[in-house]
Amino acid sequence: MRILVTNDDGIYAPGLWDLVKALMEVGEVVVVAPDREQSAVGTSVTLHQPLRARKIKPLIRGVESYCVEGTPADSVILALGSLIQGKVELLFSGINEGANLGDDVLISGTVGGALQGYLNGIPSIALSVGALEDVHFEAATRLAVTIARMMRNHALPREMLLNINLPNLPLDKIKGVEVTHLGRRSYSDVIKEGHDGKREYYWIVRGKQEWDPVEGTDIWAVLNDKISITPLHGDLTNTSRLDSLRGLSQVIFQELTSP
Amino acid sequence: MRILVTNDDGIYAPGLWDLVKALMEVGEVVVVAPDREQSAVGTSVTLHQPLRARKIKPLIRGVESYCVEGTPADSVILALGSLIQGKVELLFSGINEGANLGDDVLISGTVGGALQGYLNGIPSIALSVGALEDVHFEAATRLAVTIARMMRNHALPREMLLNINLPNLPLDKIKGVEVTHLGRRSYSDVIKEGHDGKREYYWIVRGKQEWDPVEGTDIWAVLNDKISITPLHGDLTNTSRLDSLRGLSQVIFQELTSP
Amino acid sequence: MRILVTNDDGIYAPGLWDLVKALMEVGEVVVVAPDREQSAVGTSVTLHQPLRARKIKPLIRGVESYCVEGTPADSVILALGSLIQGKVELLFSGINEGANLGDDVLISGTVGGALQGYLNGIPSIALSVGALEDVHFEAATRLAVTIARMMRNHALPREMLLNINLPNLPLDKIKGVEVTHLGRRSYSDVIKEGHDGKREYYWIVRGKQEWDPVEGTDIWAVLNDKISITPLHGDLTNTSRLDSLRGLSQVIFQELTSP
Amino acid sequence: MRILVTNDDGIYAPGLWDLVKALMEVGEVVVVAPDREQSAVGTSVTLHQPLRARKIKPLIRGVESYCVEGTPADSVILALGSLIQGKVELLFSGINEGANLGDDVLISGTVGGALQGYLNGIPSIALSVGALEDVHFEAATRLAVTIARMMRNHALPREMLLNINLPNLPLDKIKGVEVTHLGRRSYSDVIKEGHDGKREYYWIVRGKQEWDPVEGTDIWAVLNDKISITPLHGDLTNTSRLDSLRGLSQVIFQELTSP
Repeated sequence: MRILVTNDDGIYAPGLWDLVKALMEVGEVVVVAPDREQSAVGTSVTLHQPLRARKIKPLIRGVESYCVEGTPADSVILALGSLIQGKVELLFSGINEGANLGDDVLISGTVGGALQGYLNGIPSIALSVGALEDVHFEAATRLAVTIARMMRNHALPREMLLNINLPNLPLDKIKGVEVTHLGRRSYSDVIKEGHDGKREYYWIVRGKQEWDPVEGTDIWAVLNDKISITPLHGDLTNTSRLDSLRGLSQVIFQELTSP
Repeated sequence: MRILVTNDDGIYAPGLWDLVKALMEVGEVVVVAPDREQSAVGTSVTLHQPLRARKIKPLIRGVESYCVEGTPADSVILALGSLIQGKVELLFSGINEGANLGDDVLISGTVGGALQGYLNGIPSIALSVGALEDVHFEAATRLAVTIARMMRNHALPREMLLNINLPNLPLDKIKGVEVTHLGRRSYSDVIKEGHDGKREYYWIVRGKQEWDPVEGTDIWAVLNDKISITPLHGDLTNTSRLDSLRGLSQVIFQELTSP
Repeated sequence: MRILVTNDDGIYAPGLWDLVKALMEVGEVVVVAPDREQSAVGTSVTLHQPLRARKIKPLIRGVESYCVEGTPADSVILALGSLIQGKVELLFSGINEGANLGDDVLISGTVGGALQGYLNGIPSIALSVGALEDVHFEAATRLAVTIARMMRNHALPREMLLNINLPNLPLDKIKGVEVTHLGRRSYSDVIKEGHDGKREYYWIVRGKQEWDPVEGTDIWAVLNDKISITPLHGDLTNTSRLDSLRGLSQVIFQELTSP
Repeated sequence: MRILVTNDDGIYAPGLWDLVKALMEVGEVVVVAPDREQSAVGTSVTLHQPLRARKIKPLIRGVESYCVEGTPADSVILALGSLIQGKVELLFSGINEGANLGDDVLISGTVGGALQGYLNGIPSIALSVGALEDVHFEAATRLAVTIARMMRNHALPREMLLNINLPNLPLDKIKGVEVTHLGRRSYSDVIKEGHDGKREYYWIVRGKQEWDPVEGTDIWAVLNDKISITPLHGDLTNTSRLDSLRGLSQVIFQELTSP
């Protein structure tokens, strides 16, 4: 089983290589990841410029590895379309340092990379641990191996996009696995204004929200020391609104075409 | 009613100013948009660098206008957090030259801008016309006015994110309005490899797909000369998978914690 | 006489348009300039990526104007190679807000733009005023007109690259014109370290040097309320060192080739 | 003796590590270089954005190494101002794949890095080999060692900026060392126009010039299978023009101040 690994923290991030090392037990691992940190680039694909990619000397001997001067989504598109020979059967994006929860999955580069795999027909898993420092990767790497084995044994569906977040805990402190839906955003945007001597600038930073998460959401699971697994798809359609809007579509068309 | 207009074609794109001119009939228009074309940046938010923004001389006299050296999402975050005084009640992103349909809405900068408005509690509409040349903006501007008026008259719900695509036709050739769900992607990624004399490059370009669109989708509507209105939300949860995955969560946790 | 105007403050900077307005008395003015501020990009030329350029609506009616998503040097190369029809006979880069003096001319985008004109055989003038706020452009625009007229009347040599700096004073307070050589740098680099919540950053800012400028230098002239005109060329050869090094070249070759 | 090594081909370029390996015989080597290729960025310094730098795992064990998301000049400024503890006594920039000759030294990132060292009081050497493929680095590394030893033995002046180019030959085919002055540019700019499906683009590429180089220039030396050593400084003043311009300065001031 050939496994593609990407991330958004950049190809030299330790979380990626811990993941690679673990997955080598299960299959052949190929790495294609951004050369620089690409946090919050979300689904972004570079269409207006050519991209550069190059084979790098891997941090683990023998692992075919390429870095791309672009986003995680770019990396996956190039991996599947040009860089990798042969069929990819599973994709992991991560292990990200910092959770990707709630509305924030939409701007997560980690999820953006996994999403491109999924749109190209590959079972894809975004994997994050909820901490920026002193990150425990062991539970996440072990979970990755578990899932990869289940995939190899056909114990999981092939059309699959999972967003997995772990609390930053050693494995024996983790209280369970919850299948969750996405909560509302866990952060607010704060704008720090400054001046560089010549011009003003605006820096978007993340402010912590202080609300209680809804039970059953990814945010709630991680706050309760559980692993959150959220099945995603690529469809933002708000199906609960289709009917009420259909009632309005005639009105809209009449208004539009009335003289 | 204060209306924020953004886009992903850049602040000097004609589609934006046609839209602004039309919306001035309905409310006070403020423009905050990227200074450069930002196609396919999707949901991307710039967190790792400060942003520059500046007031510009508008193409229509009297319209408060700022350009941002960033993405559409950045523009909306800065607009709401720093640049605009007073409450924004409606947001339009567009008029984009080129449709944003199916899976591609996930990488659309036009939708990415509207999504940020929606996540901040503002009814937000992404508006695109399906052509890159000789674009007919009239039907789209008229539709925008219709929707803005309905919003002002409380004939539309306030919690709303719409992705609207129009066929590139004059108004009297348009055959109706369909409320649709997103189809599968309408493009495939093709990678053009080249060499600049010093290094190889890879350029992701859009190849046309040749499949028949499913009835009821946005792609189907536009191909049938109808306006497509798709209600979106910010939640990528694949709810149809929650139950089957829940059946597996115990297995996963046991595998994970077995010695 | 066709005059090309560029700058490094970006195509919408007021200093550029004051200059354009003044030069229209002397010849046909065409503007090709970066779309964004490009300070300190120096001589940088974009070879590894394609560039975008577009015709813009000028701030002064009738002036053919293009913005380039690149550096001042890129702008000049594109102007001369693709965008402008017909021969360019004179180039101005500016009016820059902020002096470009001493060693700093090497990293000045204003000078970088003029240098490309010069390397392509066009008499080229970099024009700066020594202030970042409340900038007096009148003396600089008048000086530009004076030089353009002298050029038209063949009162100045055609192979010419001038770096001109004005004190930020009204014309009647300026005490004269000095032809100068470049002084030593007028700034030191200070590195401001910070943290964005996820990673450390380093921001290079300009710290003021506190030394007395040497008489005859550009820095000295401007500090003494005079206009500084420094003739430049494109040759960094330190001719005063050629002889002493020649004495060493045999030694070096012997060392190099000894077993 | 602490030696700083930078380049413009990016920190993983083989030419840099061949150079590092050789210089380790002479002193303690520290590497601070751009994370990506930065050709033609010349003297460019990043002032409008903060920079990221990180310690990397070196390709040669034990060598303290940092990559910078910026230009060669940025790398040197950060190295000297923040990253490196203790005094740097010598700087090498290279080994560049491709010659940096004539007017092109002004836009060379390799020279731009060395120039920043020189402006900060460190003897600095830009080192390039005239080939993009099958590059012979042996003569260049050996020359670097020779120069570093002479510097350590005070056989070379401390205030020194050298631009060294080698023909792409094995050491025993090299015919000598010439101390040269810079020739005229060895390339012309060619603009390749294209279209990406949505917009036109312009790509600046290097076209070969077909003139005979002047004897005594760097271009002439390399074409004649010799090593070219050109002493540079940071002063673009065209001293041969000072007198003739001084004759005009009164005229200019009178014109300027006449009513």
